[in-house]
Amino acid sequence: MVAGIELGGTKIVCLLARGPDAIEDRVQLPTTRPEETLAGIEHVLDGWGKFDALGIASFGPISIDRHAADYGHVTSTPKPHWAGTDVAKRLAARYEVPTGFHTDVVGAALAEARWGAAEGLRDVAYVTVGTGIGVGLIAGGVPVDGLTHSELGHIRPDRLTGDDWIGICPFHGGCLEGLAAGPAIGARAGKKGEDIAADDPVWEPVAHVLAQLCHTLVLTGVPRRIVMGGGVMVGNDHLFPRIRAAMVKSLAGYIALPEIAEPSFVVPPALGGNAGPLGAIVLGGQALEQQLKSFTAL
Amino acid sequence: MVAGIELGGTKIVCLLARGPDAIEDRVQLPTTRPEETLAGIEHVLDGWGKFDALGIASFGPISIDRHAADYGHVTSTPKPHWAGTDVAKRLAARYEVPTGFHTDVVGAALAEARWGAAEGLRDVAYVTVGTGIGVGLIAGGVPVDGLTHSELGHIRPDRLTGDDWIGICPFHGGCLEGLAAGPAIGARAGKKGEDIAADDPVWEPVAHVLAQLCHTLVLTGVPRRIVMGGGVMVGNDHLFPRIRAAMVKSLAGYIALPEIAEPSFVVPPALGGNAGPLGAIVLGGQALEQQLKSFTAL
Repeated sequence: MVAGIELGGTKIVCLLARGPDAIEDRVQLPTTRPEETLAGIEHVLDGWGKFDALGIASFGPISIDRHAADYGHVTSTPKPHWAGTDVAKRLAARYEVPTGFHTDVVGAALAEARWGAAEGLRDVAYVTVGTGIGVGLIAGGVPVDGLTHSELGHIRPDRLTGDDWIGICPFHGGCLEGLAAGPAIGARAGKKGEDIAADDPVWEPVAHVLAQLCHTLVLTGVPRRIVMGGGVMVGNDHLFPRIRAAMVKSLAGYIALPEIAEPSFVVPPALGGNAGPLGAIVLGGQALEQQLKSFTAL
Repeated sequence: MVAGIELGGTKIVCLLARGPDAIEDRVQLPTTRPEETLAGIEHVLDGWGKFDALGIASFGPISIDRHAADYGHVTSTPKPHWAGTDVAKRLAARYEVPTGFHTDVVGAALAEARWGAAEGLRDVAYVTVGTGIGVGLIAGGVPVDGLTHSELGHIRPDRLTGDDWIGICPFHGGCLEGLAAGPAIGARAGKKGEDIAADDPVWEPVAHVLAQLCHTLVLTGVPRRIVMGGGVMVGNDHLFPRIRAAMVKSLAGYIALPEIAEPSFVVPPALGGNAGPLGAIVLGGQALEQQLKSFTAL
């Protein structure tokens, strides 16, 4: 049994489970100040008693480098009070079980690959397009990382000819997130997201730059499927065929693999709100597996 | 002892070695028609007698998916006669040893990480800027791949304001390779590469788009160092400080890790012409290690 925690910007979901069909308990908490929030999580986990591993899928940026002094911390987030908060070290020390720690989008990628829209695939990208744009990439069933985790939501994409809208990313202006996340679309259209019709002209440049992210992801060589979720995608099904078509046009036949042009290559998620906490369950399971492997290797 | 083959577009290097300080033999052959070239390689390897593993670092595109019918083949190359040529299956069957097969740039990344400019690092990008632009990415010491290998030389980069030169990639026009590989620079400057001075205005847009590749690579989260080689980089040291500065400016402080701004983050290679064949040696060693692991797991 694994304890999984999705640490979101507004809410926490704690799950005691083996998978989507073996959920023992599910508790939701609001994300407030770090000390209060972490004490709340500990109260839930203390109540569960015994579990074999712990997984945490967190909003970022976070430090995932096990050799770094700040491993397990939320690092430079603009979220008040949370910058520099230790999460994973604290919980790993309290529960003394193998502990996995990665981003919420990597968690969602792992969960969708294990039980969802990319079931059976080990090389998958998960893209969330919501308040921000995040990308989780897994290859061979494990997260692609190194120095840090993916931040591919901040690439500077090719633009439609004549599109020079400045974008709203405070760091980059017209990076992908500054052009195509929910707040950017709203700012550009001059109305609320739910009021933007499918035939609104704002979608054309948005679909173009999201397709550029897919172009870039295909060129990493990794994903056998791209799962796109988050509030912008969920509410706007019409984006999927547009993004697929623009991606195929942009790749221009260079990658000669027919699956890329199939509708099944860019798809919505299947796990809904449970992708995050189920991803945390996979992260915990992988941490346990790693520890077992290191025993075997001795 | 490992047999390593660098399969290049114009020449083949065969190496019998354990590493750069333990080279038993080195034979160079021209790349001609596939049948003649492969027979030449077999003649060299037959003469070596016994080796424990075989590694092949090849020009691409190639099929690296062990479950695909065309695994081990050069696939859709424009190089006459080579499209669809089986390389790795043929040699693996002949020598009956564990055989690794990947791109020349992944080979170079592995070799530079093991013995060269990124020695001791397990998360490294190798970029070649020559006739084309190729990227090899390794994470945790092994190649990052999945559906296929990296083709990040064909991203569509952000351009300098006012730069609308059309580019020469036959697939994409102004993708990175179409803008910043050797032939593109020559076409844009209207002179031969060796005649373009360091203060020629052509370098400004070239450095900008190469920095965009580095920006994208940093955002994958993987590399702890980016090694940039190939004919364009080797002959133009002035590009390194320009690319570093433009990359740091483009990232705009978003990735708050100080090492990214150090001169040691983007560096020239250290192994010169031996990076390719030494990479093939690492690929062979990794294939051997994989086989040993699968025995242990039984």
